[in-house]
Amino acid sequence: MSTQDIAADLVALCRAGKYDEAGEKHWADDVLSVEAGGGDMAEMRGKDAVRGKGEWWARTHEVHSAEVGGPYVNGDQFVVRFTMDITNRETGQRMNMDEVGVYTVKGGKIAEERFFYGG
Amino acid sequence: MSTQDIAADLVALCRAGKYDEAGEKHWADDVLSVEAGGGDMAEMRGKDAVRGKGEWWARTHEVHSAEVGGPYVNGDQFVVRFTMDITNRETGQRMNMDEVGVYTVKGGKIAEERFFYGG
Repeated sequence: MSTQDIAADLVALCRAGKYDEAGEKHWADDVLSVEAGGGDMAEMRGKDAVRGKGEWWARTHEVHSAEVGGPYVNGDQFVVRFTMDITNRETGQRMNMDEVGVYTVKGGKIAEERFFYGG
Repeated sequence: MSTQDIAADLVALCRAGKYDEAGEKHWADDVLSVEAGGGDMAEMRGKDAVRGKGEWWARTHEVHSAEVGGPYVNGDQFVVRFTMDITNRETGQRMNMDEVGVYTVKGGKIAEERFFYGG
């Protein structure tokens, strides 16, 4: 699949709420996932670790609504915007999340995903 | 200036319509500017060349309205979204432009800017 194809498919899966499937299908085995802001999960390497981060996030957050913008493509990279109305199940805090992911494709798989948070 | 400070200042200048000033202030002398989609200006290196691209763009396009989203920050990088209602002065075509820029900061200056187009 081309970068454009992967980008379009990932966005379609995320719009359908299939975030897990989007990762399983498109991550490289040794994918690197980088979050802004440090913390234990700032850099995770490998499909198992990144899947674990996703599972933790899904357990910890209730998603009331989500919008997925893009994709924006350039060469072997693409950008997706995620805006979500979520509640943190641990704190009960409801918030609007606004972030973008920058994805780098190598050999038809997502080799790196890097998340940026809006202010 | 930190990456966060540069990001916030660049966004503020762009929101004020001061795109030229944003570049002059924050580009490194050897800044690399990468557009999606190939063409003569796909990769421009150096402040003079990138300034020239901006001047060409400003001559060629009339901007009816613009929104600047973000910044979204992660480490030494940040992302800005540009949505613009523009008319190409050469073709007369009016269009909505939706793109994001991914900026990489080194030594307090923008070393690289890479633009991605929405579909």
